[in-house]
Amino acid sequence: MVLTRSSKELYEEYVRYMRKIADIKNALAVLQWDQETYLPAKGAAARGQQIATLSETSHEWLVSARLGALLNDLNDRNDLGPEEKRNVTLSLEDYTKQKKFSPEFVRLLSETTSRCWHAWIKSRQVNSFALFGDDLAKLVELKRQEADLAGYAGHPYDALLDEFERACTVSLLDRVFDEVRQPLKELLDRIAASPEIVDNSFLHQHYPRQQQWEFGMGLIRQMGFDLQAGRQDLSEHPFTTSFSRNDVRITTRIDENDLGHMTWSCIHEAGHALYEQGLPEAYYGLPLGEYASLSIHESQSRLWENNVGRSHAWWQYQYPLLQKTFPGQLSKVSLEQFYRGINKVGPSLIRTEADEVSYHFHVMIRYELEKRLIEGSMPVHELPGYWNEQYAQYLGVRVTDDKHGCLQDVHWSHGSFGYFPTYSLGSFYAAQLYAVAEKEERGLPEAVLRGDTSLLLGWLRGHIHQYGRQYNSEELCQRATGETLNIQHFLAYLLDKYNNIYKI
Amino acid sequence: MVLTRSSKELYEEYVRYMRKIADIKNALAVLQWDQETYLPAKGAAARGQQIATLSETSHEWLVSARLGALLNDLNDRNDLGPEEKRNVTLSLEDYTKQKKFSPEFVRLLSETTSRCWHAWIKSRQVNSFALFGDDLAKLVELKRQEADLAGYAGHPYDALLDEFERACTVSLLDRVFDEVRQPLKELLDRIAASPEIVDNSFLHQHYPRQQQWEFGMGLIRQMGFDLQAGRQDLSEHPFTTSFSRNDVRITTRIDENDLGHMTWSCIHEAGHALYEQGLPEAYYGLPLGEYASLSIHESQSRLWENNVGRSHAWWQYQYPLLQKTFPGQLSKVSLEQFYRGINKVGPSLIRTEADEVSYHFHVMIRYELEKRLIEGSMPVHELPGYWNEQYAQYLGVRVTDDKHGCLQDVHWSHGSFGYFPTYSLGSFYAAQLYAVAEKEERGLPEAVLRGDTSLLLGWLRGHIHQYGRQYNSEELCQRATGETLNIQHFLAYLLDKYNNIYKI
Repeated sequence: MVLTRSSKELYEEYVRYMRKIADIKNALAVLQWDQETYLPAKGAAARGQQIATLSETSHEWLVSARLGALLNDLNDRNDLGPEEKRNVTLSLEDYTKQKKFSPEFVRLLSETTSRCWHAWIKSRQVNSFALFGDDLAKLVELKRQEADLAGYAGHPYDALLDEFERACTVSLLDRVFDEVRQPLKELLDRIAASPEIVDNSFLHQHYPRQQQWEFGMGLIRQMGFDLQAGRQDLSEHPFTTSFSRNDVRITTRIDENDLGHMTWSCIHEAGHALYEQGLPEAYYGLPLGEYASLSIHESQSRLWENNVGRSHAWWQYQYPLLQKTFPGQLSKVSLEQFYRGINKVGPSLIRTEADEVSYHFHVMIRYELEKRLIEGSMPVHELPGYWNEQYAQYLGVRVTDDKHGCLQDVHWSHGSFGYFPTYSLGSFYAAQLYAVAEKEERGLPEAVLRGDTSLLLGWLRGHIHQYGRQYNSEELCQRATGETLNIQHFLAYLLDKYNNIYKI
Repeated sequence: MVLTRSSKELYEEYVRYMRKIADIKNALAVLQWDQETYLPAKGAAARGQQIATLSETSHEWLVSARLGALLNDLNDRNDLGPEEKRNVTLSLEDYTKQKKFSPEFVRLLSETTSRCWHAWIKSRQVNSFALFGDDLAKLVELKRQEADLAGYAGHPYDALLDEFERACTVSLLDRVFDEVRQPLKELLDRIAASPEIVDNSFLHQHYPRQQQWEFGMGLIRQMGFDLQAGRQDLSEHPFTTSFSRNDVRITTRIDENDLGHMTWSCIHEAGHALYEQGLPEAYYGLPLGEYASLSIHESQSRLWENNVGRSHAWWQYQYPLLQKTFPGQLSKVSLEQFYRGINKVGPSLIRTEADEVSYHFHVMIRYELEKRLIEGSMPVHELPGYWNEQYAQYLGVRVTDDKHGCLQDVHWSHGSFGYFPTYSLGSFYAAQLYAVAEKEERGLPEAVLRGDTSLLLGWLRGHIHQYGRQYNSEELCQRATGETLNIQHFLAYLLDKYNNIYKI
């Protein structure tokens, strides 16, 4: 006869088990971080195997019958506290979702993705989508199966969105993008028609590596990034990763002929990092210790990068410091010129280089494409044609080649369908959060003028960071701002800024 | 009915399984490397947990019934190739040894060690052995139990030696140390009586960090360290670690007021690293892909550090480069003065700072102490008294305090009894290997004069590195030099060098 175990004992076993999984996942993240920063070239093959083993192990533990039994048992208990209950509910949701996929399907998906990524690398080398198409088609087919296995109420794409953005749907995204499409297009057209000349050539002088690094470190320190609980290194592509809230790593890249790249990548990644450093420590390894969603994560990076980091107010304090660092390059560029230059708008081919207005057309084009691929209304080989046509229609640019077209992003080769929309949602949430924070938090705008963003960070900690995965994006937004996503905040922010800069 | 599986299938399963364990162990090594090099201060606690989880996981897999069944089955097969057979034999030996310890004993040992290490840290802070004694006594008691559980034929210490140095015994070590004790003591006395003044004060000028780093990188590159398959970073204490033979990491420490520290730590660690980079790639995760023993590992680092790196021949090429790097500090110091200075002999309190002659008294004192503790003939609280008395007797120095006495090394707090002797064995093997290589490999001494050590590296690769764990230390020594350890090589090397320097 087995004695019934108390809820407390069960819950503690659940916590121990989840923390072991978190340890493996975080070890995996350390190996990936090292891979992007310090790994010697010949170490790549063994590292790939080590990463695969850790990944398999954490997955096996996450879908184990033992965890399932524990979660189902806990889910039936009535004597858990509200946070305990919430952790169990979220873990059971994760578990149930994972169990919908057989080990064979998971392996097939992983192998196909790996092949697809290698095909993408190759196709970029020869600059032709053709080499990538067949593998991508196979991957799309699997993602369609994945949607069927996961299940959905409305559109099959909803099932894929769910991985990045709980409770987000095609119907929500269609509504939001429908609301912004026309106003953004009109704004772009008015900017194009404006006689104002905005010059950012000063960003493309020679800026020595070491001074750039030191200025960037100053920026992230000033933002409140805790260097006792994280660090910055260099990598090919900037990213943020976290091994615990007390060890959050960001990276940047320095281009000596482009001051902008380092500057806004530091601010962007530090924005992500401040969120990770603000997650509740007590919930290490548990859902309440995790970030809410990708769009909320991105709202944090973009709020700092754009709403703060491209604002006139913030640079009133920072710009003299920048001029002092680079007197030869900037002493004759006024704050006004600098502010206008860093906000220059102009359609381009590459998403990651886009300004704040045209950016969202890059996302909308990808979103429409993904929907079609996943619902099966467009075959993969039509992708480049559709892509080029949309870029011509929305941005008025001619795609010169696939590398500057539909091969530019890694996401699809990773099987990440449903990821791109979270970038735009991030900008939209950011504008709403910042508008409310500025209004609600007494003295915040004045503090920013002095370079002091501690009030802002405090507001974000109190309204967003501390909740972990307690609420989904829309619930968090509602609690923090009194309403769910309201696109008017974003539009008002853009119109205010660009009407002023382009005098329209 | 279960079909009998072929030996090939079984062996392949064994290889897959061992490689998964290796992946976890190597991931653990990455986390430890990061901990010593880049980890932000607040990240330590979570990192400790992550390391513990990986360590438990690899241990569980290593002692799993599944592996045991597989190894026993394979061990009964007659159709394995010789290398396959050797891998299985060694893995089964490891497995059988591990299984002698119950999970409870392993946990108790791990907890006691952890407490003991913390006590050691504290006792160093207050500079008193008293705070460390009780925890050390408990650990010694467990190590005595460990020896009983592991089993031994001669002395209980043999069982602990076995962890670091297969087939090594008290009777072997007693014989070796008996052979060197008197000649070394006589040499030390003659050096002390010599009127020759050897001056090394030039090493203690100001040597800027960046130039030291670059000179050190030049040294390891020159030695043949493959920077595509490894890297060097900074850490508090220099060390070597390996995540595969294609990713070997070393560290150094730079003291701006001591050129010697960086220089010989680079050479020493690169010596370890060259061994790791020379292990056979095909045996990743298997015994034949591992190093032979600690003494052989140490023989590699010391051969480079001392037999090459403190030789007159090698510095004929390197010294002009060093002078060019530090003209202000060294242009007036001749090669002769430099060579004599870097080989200055003088008794000291600290093992890691000792010269090549007095070094072995530090080891012999520890060895005698360890034997007494493990055989139970000396209680732990008598340790400091015995220590201080031995230092007075052999080295003629007065131990001023425990930090400069019996608290100086971390080993005992880690439970590593039986480790110290491998340092001396390393020096002894190094002298023998180098003497034979110099004689056997045509052109080697002349090449060293030109700074070219590729012939030496080739000889070590061919006679030591490529064999992995195929042979134990004495077997390897026999195959490489035609005889087992012969202490006369080491004595001849020292006498030749110091008779010349001290004109005795």
